[in-house]
Amino acid sequence: MSDAPLLDHLYTVGSLENVHGGFRFQVKNRLFDATLVAVDRLVVDGDDVDVACVVLELGDAEIPAAGLHDGGIPFPLRCVVGVRVAGRALPDGAHHVVIAFRSEPFGALELEVRDNVAIPRTARDGIPRDLDDDYSAEIIERRHRYLEAFSGHSLEHLDQYSFDPHLAQGNVESFIGVAQVPIGLAGPLRVRGEHADGEFLIPLATAEGTLVASYNRGMKVINESGGAICTVVDDCMQRAPVFIFESAREARDFKGWLDEHFTEIAAAAEATTSIGKLLYVDTYLAAKFAFLRFNFSTGDAAGQNMVGRATFAACSWILEQVDTVRRFYLESNFATDKKASQVNIMRTRGKRVVAEVTIPRRVLTSIMRVEPETLFHHSGVANVGSFLAGVNNNGLHSPNGITAMFIATGQDVANVAESSAAVVYVDLLPDQSLYLSITIPSLIVATYGGGTSLATQRECLELLDCYGRGKVNKLAEIIAGVVLAGEISLASAISSLDWVSSHEQYGRNR
Amino acid sequence: MSDAPLLDHLYTVGSLENVHGGFRFQVKNRLFDATLVAVDRLVVDGDDVDVACVVLELGDAEIPAAGLHDGGIPFPLRCVVGVRVAGRALPDGAHHVVIAFRSEPFGALELEVRDNVAIPRTARDGIPRDLDDDYSAEIIERRHRYLEAFSGHSLEHLDQYSFDPHLAQGNVESFIGVAQVPIGLAGPLRVRGEHADGEFLIPLATAEGTLVASYNRGMKVINESGGAICTVVDDCMQRAPVFIFESAREARDFKGWLDEHFTEIAAAAEATTSIGKLLYVDTYLAAKFAFLRFNFSTGDAAGQNMVGRATFAACSWILEQVDTVRRFYLESNFATDKKASQVNIMRTRGKRVVAEVTIPRRVLTSIMRVEPETLFHHSGVANVGSFLAGVNNNGLHSPNGITAMFIATGQDVANVAESSAAVVYVDLLPDQSLYLSITIPSLIVATYGGGTSLATQRECLELLDCYGRGKVNKLAEIIAGVVLAGEISLASAISSLDWVSSHEQYGRNR
Amino acid sequence: MSDAPLLDHLYTVGSLENVHGGFRFQVKNRLFDATLVAVDRLVVDGDDVDVACVVLELGDAEIPAAGLHDGGIPFPLRCVVGVRVAGRALPDGAHHVVIAFRSEPFGALELEVRDNVAIPRTARDGIPRDLDDDYSAEIIERRHRYLEAFSGHSLEHLDQYSFDPHLAQGNVESFIGVAQVPIGLAGPLRVRGEHADGEFLIPLATAEGTLVASYNRGMKVINESGGAICTVVDDCMQRAPVFIFESAREARDFKGWLDEHFTEIAAAAEATTSIGKLLYVDTYLAAKFAFLRFNFSTGDAAGQNMVGRATFAACSWILEQVDTVRRFYLESNFATDKKASQVNIMRTRGKRVVAEVTIPRRVLTSIMRVEPETLFHHSGVANVGSFLAGVNNNGLHSPNGITAMFIATGQDVANVAESSAAVVYVDLLPDQSLYLSITIPSLIVATYGGGTSLATQRECLELLDCYGRGKVNKLAEIIAGVVLAGEISLASAISSLDWVSSHEQYGRNR
Amino acid sequence: MSDAPLLDHLYTVGSLENVHGGFRFQVKNRLFDATLVAVDRLVVDGDDVDVACVVLELGDAEIPAAGLHDGGIPFPLRCVVGVRVAGRALPDGAHHVVIAFRSEPFGALELEVRDNVAIPRTARDGIPRDLDDDYSAEIIERRHRYLEAFSGHSLEHLDQYSFDPHLAQGNVESFIGVAQVPIGLAGPLRVRGEHADGEFLIPLATAEGTLVASYNRGMKVINESGGAICTVVDDCMQRAPVFIFESAREARDFKGWLDEHFTEIAAAAEATTSIGKLLYVDTYLAAKFAFLRFNFSTGDAAGQNMVGRATFAACSWILEQVDTVRRFYLESNFATDKKASQVNIMRTRGKRVVAEVTIPRRVLTSIMRVEPETLFHHSGVANVGSFLAGVNNNGLHSPNGITAMFIATGQDVANVAESSAAVVYVDLLPDQSLYLSITIPSLIVATYGGGTSLATQRECLELLDCYGRGKVNKLAEIIAGVVLAGEISLASAISSLDWVSSHEQYGRNR
Repeated sequence: MSDAPLLDHLYTVGSLENVHGGFRFQVKNRLFDATLVAVDRLVVDGDDVDVACVVLELGDAEIPAAGLHDGGIPFPLRCVVGVRVAGRALPDGAHHVVIAFRSEPFGALELEVRDNVAIPRTARDGIPRDLDDDYSAEIIERRHRYLEAFSGHSLEHLDQYSFDPHLAQGNVESFIGVAQVPIGLAGPLRVRGEHADGEFLIPLATAEGTLVASYNRGMKVINESGGAICTVVDDCMQRAPVFIFESAREARDFKGWLDEHFTEIAAAAEATTSIGKLLYVDTYLAAKFAFLRFNFSTGDAAGQNMVGRATFAACSWILEQVDTVRRFYLESNFATDKKASQVNIMRTRGKRVVAEVTIPRRVLTSIMRVEPETLFHHSGVANVGSFLAGVNNNGLHSPNGITAMFIATGQDVANVAESSAAVVYVDLLPDQSLYLSITIPSLIVATYGGGTSLATQRECLELLDCYGRGKVNKLAEIIAGVVLAGEISLASAISSLDWVSSHEQYGRNR
Repeated sequence: MSDAPLLDHLYTVGSLENVHGGFRFQVKNRLFDATLVAVDRLVVDGDDVDVACVVLELGDAEIPAAGLHDGGIPFPLRCVVGVRVAGRALPDGAHHVVIAFRSEPFGALELEVRDNVAIPRTARDGIPRDLDDDYSAEIIERRHRYLEAFSGHSLEHLDQYSFDPHLAQGNVESFIGVAQVPIGLAGPLRVRGEHADGEFLIPLATAEGTLVASYNRGMKVINESGGAICTVVDDCMQRAPVFIFESAREARDFKGWLDEHFTEIAAAAEATTSIGKLLYVDTYLAAKFAFLRFNFSTGDAAGQNMVGRATFAACSWILEQVDTVRRFYLESNFATDKKASQVNIMRTRGKRVVAEVTIPRRVLTSIMRVEPETLFHHSGVANVGSFLAGVNNNGLHSPNGITAMFIATGQDVANVAESSAAVVYVDLLPDQSLYLSITIPSLIVATYGGGTSLATQRECLELLDCYGRGKVNKLAEIIAGVVLAGEISLASAISSLDWVSSHEQYGRNR
Repeated sequence: MSDAPLLDHLYTVGSLENVHGGFRFQVKNRLFDATLVAVDRLVVDGDDVDVACVVLELGDAEIPAAGLHDGGIPFPLRCVVGVRVAGRALPDGAHHVVIAFRSEPFGALELEVRDNVAIPRTARDGIPRDLDDDYSAEIIERRHRYLEAFSGHSLEHLDQYSFDPHLAQGNVESFIGVAQVPIGLAGPLRVRGEHADGEFLIPLATAEGTLVASYNRGMKVINESGGAICTVVDDCMQRAPVFIFESAREARDFKGWLDEHFTEIAAAAEATTSIGKLLYVDTYLAAKFAFLRFNFSTGDAAGQNMVGRATFAACSWILEQVDTVRRFYLESNFATDKKASQVNIMRTRGKRVVAEVTIPRRVLTSIMRVEPETLFHHSGVANVGSFLAGVNNNGLHSPNGITAMFIATGQDVANVAESSAAVVYVDLLPDQSLYLSITIPSLIVATYGGGTSLATQRECLELLDCYGRGKVNKLAEIIAGVVLAGEISLASAISSLDWVSSHEQYGRNR
Repeated sequence: MSDAPLLDHLYTVGSLENVHGGFRFQVKNRLFDATLVAVDRLVVDGDDVDVACVVLELGDAEIPAAGLHDGGIPFPLRCVVGVRVAGRALPDGAHHVVIAFRSEPFGALELEVRDNVAIPRTARDGIPRDLDDDYSAEIIERRHRYLEAFSGHSLEHLDQYSFDPHLAQGNVESFIGVAQVPIGLAGPLRVRGEHADGEFLIPLATAEGTLVASYNRGMKVINESGGAICTVVDDCMQRAPVFIFESAREARDFKGWLDEHFTEIAAAAEATTSIGKLLYVDTYLAAKFAFLRFNFSTGDAAGQNMVGRATFAACSWILEQVDTVRRFYLESNFATDKKASQVNIMRTRGKRVVAEVTIPRRVLTSIMRVEPETLFHHSGVANVGSFLAGVNNNGLHSPNGITAMFIATGQDVANVAESSAAVVYVDLLPDQSLYLSITIPSLIVATYGGGTSLATQRECLELLDCYGRGKVNKLAEIIAGVVLAGEISLASAISSLDWVSSHEQYGRNR
């Protein structure tokens, strides 16, 4: 779900090696289901290779590249095709291979590989790996020995875990064990959402003393106030390519063209995914650049990879239609993945979720020992502090609760960067109760995919009845409720302190 | 280390209950070592109580409150004094208790408690707790049963861990088990810092497939380029109280007063800590407010609690000197803890650390298959995207590496909010090598305190030889080097894609 | 064109006074053409007044309010209807008047007036005014005397101007004369826009020595490079009301409703203007608020008043349809009029215009004595400075040129607040020429309305052939070209200095 | 006072021309008073010229360059020395001249000139200029004719003004006349500042209808509330050079060095000015850069040029001391001149001034017909809008008043870019009066220098008793009071509208 893997899925690499007196490399389809219609050309280090010498390896089958023409062969997503060239081994060192082929629906495609002929892996002095099964007990054990030898420390805890490491395949490479992050239990918390409606016990994974206790106090206030009203108000995930033109004028005209072709662009994007839907594309113009921000709905997955693939497909289609593009990058820093940004605050990334509560005066004074007026006053002062400091969050500490829940439930924790943004609004009502709401404009959560199916992570999701399909809005609502509890608790603590201090001040003359 | 616990340490609570035909409550000193000189007054629900009826409970000893006057009794940090009033039980419901006493060095202090007479804990239907030992196997087991009953799911993994749960005391409340976050191994990475100089194997705790592999590729580039040059260029931790005045004029004059009394303010602050040093105080004026940003060095701890306590002590001293303060809050959102902010980017929070590398052209082209010109060009375009989007990070994905290392090494992961900020600068040198640097202006790390001594967390720190005193700059340098590797890797992937796409584009006419 | 007047145009005020043994007040239609169908009720200080006693004063005619029912009377935009009540004078002091009437197409409307019975103006000791003609020589002279008496200074220059002061009616109240701002001439500047194509002499109104000379140098560079390629890439003007609901959920549902009713909303808005077109409405949700940003095209006017009126009409229609709105304000600080903001940078306010030039190396070295490499390097360094400082403009000084042209051509100069934003992008091309572009995302200009028809202002517009209808994009292009010239000039000066300084540095050992 | 002229003052240009069978060029001292001790070397197009052939022209006197050595000759600030080389004329086209000389206190200095041999000015087809007196009636008339011929329009108003154009020397080049900007009178306004204490009539130069009337209404509210309490709370002007190093480590060490040498740096800076004082230097580190922000007090001038010169002198001294600097630019975009920025909001640029008022409830309801509760509520909602939009001003329209006063009083109007920032704080007090304050963190004003001595501009300053030395804080206070009036007026208008609209809404069912 991170930026790093995203691009690799789109990336077509060849592992060049000498075999059987010739050589071979691989082509992997990381985009979407296609049909390989013909191999048109193969060039090695500038020399054309006769296509007749080329054999395609497909699992068990082998097909001469020259004999493809009757309808082609399926080339599904994630399929790896080996390309073997007979009768010619390559010398050591770097080589340049170009392969031109045709596929449906992509048409002509030319891929280039610059690679060194692989040196046998065993010769390298690095982290031990097993190309066949890198999650077996044996290879993990070998890595432990390597690590112990390298560092001079013996492992006592890292290698303790309760699941089959193969479960972590797709989540981590060079697996050596787990971090054991303590989980405390808070709640129950009463949530009145559209998807989460009831009481929930909240697992918080943290090492910060009193965090659990503090959130727990806030939950008590919420419960006594009738629960947290939680609402997902928007939902979209982005990838933001940039198209570069000769001049600003062409970039502007491109924007006009885009608006006219949204339907086709959406079709190209959605061909790569059964779940993602392209909602809209924002175009931002500056200099001779057109920055496009593709906005998708992604179901119960966080969807960063899904939208990366879909955006790439859409861009490929666009690039086939538009002559004027000089250059293109799939990402322009406008996504803005793993970043706090004004665009996320304004226009949503992931879930935009609001938690609200109206706290009766007596609940606040009896449980938190603070008067709503003080808390309200502090909020006004803190807004000035926030404005001067230039923060992404005029509230107090929403990332504390978000991070603890992200770790517990297998989210991509690095998304705390964008999920840390928040808008707090407090109002003192005529009956002296306190309306308090927090809006999290870019909460990135999943109940499916990524780390959600790992052992303890899935278990925590299940405890919340939030594992799997159709649950992501429920999880978002619960997290928002938890965050609200934390705001109440800390705001009360800060506001009470004011009172303590005043007393100390006024006391000094006695 | 989070905001939440901070304030509780300063907070004085009383657990009101009826005992032995009278009642009692508690006063806890959460600030720093003091001497209790005299109890001056006790008021219950508006009525003065004769101090002669009051007994102070100190561990085993009991002392009549009226008999304190010969020099007082020690009232050390974290000491709890029971205050018992004989001969009068309180009716059910809320009560208001005020106690006025004198202590050294604080002088007269008046504390107020609004509390309900405690209802026996067993009567409550909530998460099971054991006030004597809340980390025993028995009570943890009881929580498991409670959780299973509540949720209808049985626990299989959450309760699997390799350490004595008492180790987590001070890190988490209502402990129920651990999140098992997979760790992958990357490296070795060559770091050329002032504190970290050598090769390091990097444990990355993540659930994001290919993240470890991607960082690993970047490390290879760094190693081939001679290593990452890492430097901690600044170091400070903040707490930001606000003082409120009658008018802007008094706030301004207060600023002048502060500048003249820095030495005494620093002395008051540093009296609470053997490690923290008050470096300087920034004062920001707006409306009738003076926002103070106290900047401390905090040794090997992240130091949020340390500076909270020290700032509170300094403010207490200030409040005793200055007549004009109308109101005071210990935090004003200017710290800016757990937030991305311009002030952090500009003026540092935690460590400000820079990682630099100059990558020879051939290293980039051979390992990453991308030309430095393309990567440089992308960086210029992405800067425009960053500017339009209003990001806190003109780089690509530093939070990925930071988060994975934070989880592995027991940092306060919620600090990813501020640690996600970064400044990337790329330059193409005349010899076509690529200078690439990343500045992390607010990296919040510790090698002591917080979660660093937990089982796997300490083990990961030890593998890096970064556990304990005198190691925090070393850890900061290593993290910066890791982050640099990730930038190289993803920047190359994005830039290569440009090339792939161009080929597809140009290929369409064939 | 300022915010201030906007709201007054929508505002319906009554000037309450006693006349002829009864009293009267005024109702002004500041919204759009309507028909007054019936007066339903009139309440004065809580008492119903018999509508039979009410007479409507329309210019010369007077119509009994009770006798309206046959089709009604026209109530055009800006028409003032006097409402006179016979037989009852009001006592001194404040009164509360409510009038309920029906109009087409607005339906039932209830207006409330809280006003004091007017005290005769002559009794006040303030700035002299003449209600009949406040721009006559006589009243202006009286104000001069008043000002001289008040200040003790005699006027020598302020009262010198070359036009009939009545021309300033609608531009300024309590007119006393003019500021004489020096204008220098720069150019000719070669512009290659879509609307401005040719050479232009540029009038710059400024008091900053060397500004004109500096811009002139930059123009020389542009001319030698073939001219500035200028393009208006976007155009819209905003008003941003906020609708407040019971909860976030209702705010979200309201957004859905809005999307379904765009056509009707646009119709309601556009009924108030023959020029403005509602392009789209952005909705931003937070807490229980829906912030709407109405985006209009406004022809050759800047259009702030136009869009204020139109947005108000649209909101009135919305408020009639939607039950759930609890509160409404016509502006929410999201417009963001007269402010620098990220939303303006991102999503345009006024014209978004780009000026580009590719400067051959020899042109830069011969005219500006700086090498393109140095200027390019400085741009990269300054981008880091910009990022740390949190600026709205990564360029150097676009507001210098913009302000000088705004004053000269009668623009609303306070819009420099938003027009000061800029995005500069510089690239060093393979042939060592320098591509330099500046994007002004929120340039607010008019060639019609506001101050454009004042004496010298109109003259400056005419010199550029930019006065009146159909000229606004031309003016925007010219301003962008001027701004580009200024960037080149100052960037060169800064970059040359580097060179000078280096020499001083290296010279020290000699 | 703009950026443009600043650098030219530091810039040393030579006007290369052939004279008397040899050639000459000029060296101008734009930095500060010096003594020219020796000419060491002169190189023309790579060839050394015998210093014996060189004559220095100083006003009337001529001195052989070789005969300087006895103590040198004075080379005061702004002095131009002609350098004449006998016996050798230069061919047409570009030439490269290097002159090395020594001066006190600067030491060895090497200046380089790349210039073309001047072509007689009359041959150029451009804007007419008169090198002897470019402000004479005759040359201005010639420019009028040129402009009329170029544009095809005849001038009727531009050339009408009431002062001797020589007064504009130093303010504008290629003077052709004036923009006549209408001025309206508002007030009197009661200001209770430390420097401005009393009532003031306010000249507002604007073309925006109702602006004057709107501000006038707000002034009435302020007067009835006892006046605006205005306070200048900070004052500093910046120039922000950047020093570039080999690595981040050297940049950090440089920061340490700076801290140790502040006294000497201040001395070097202050040697260039009798007024400016170096207050402190902020250093911001990123990559291998040290961004320095020099903060000066500048008396009654805005001081941009003053601090530019002083900073350059300080940097020159630094560059002589520090070996490790690789590159240096006098400005890094961190100043942040003519830009809205977070650093200005946080840390002041120009004057930081606060205006405050506490408005009794009845004043607001009777004059503005709005209840303080509504205005307060709107302020809270608008703060959310401001936060989402990313504005530099959470108030409403301070630039309207600031711009009108800037134009009237001869300020550098382009500084509206930074002066547009504002922080508004509103509080509803227990007695239902409304505390309202506005903080302008970067108000850039002068009462001396720049445009302040122009005809009408000086007159407006004199009307406020704000012309000349010792008046700048007074002017800042008055402007702040005016701005406050505008906020009250517009905030009331927006809040009343809410009320109007509600009525329309509720009226729909009748």
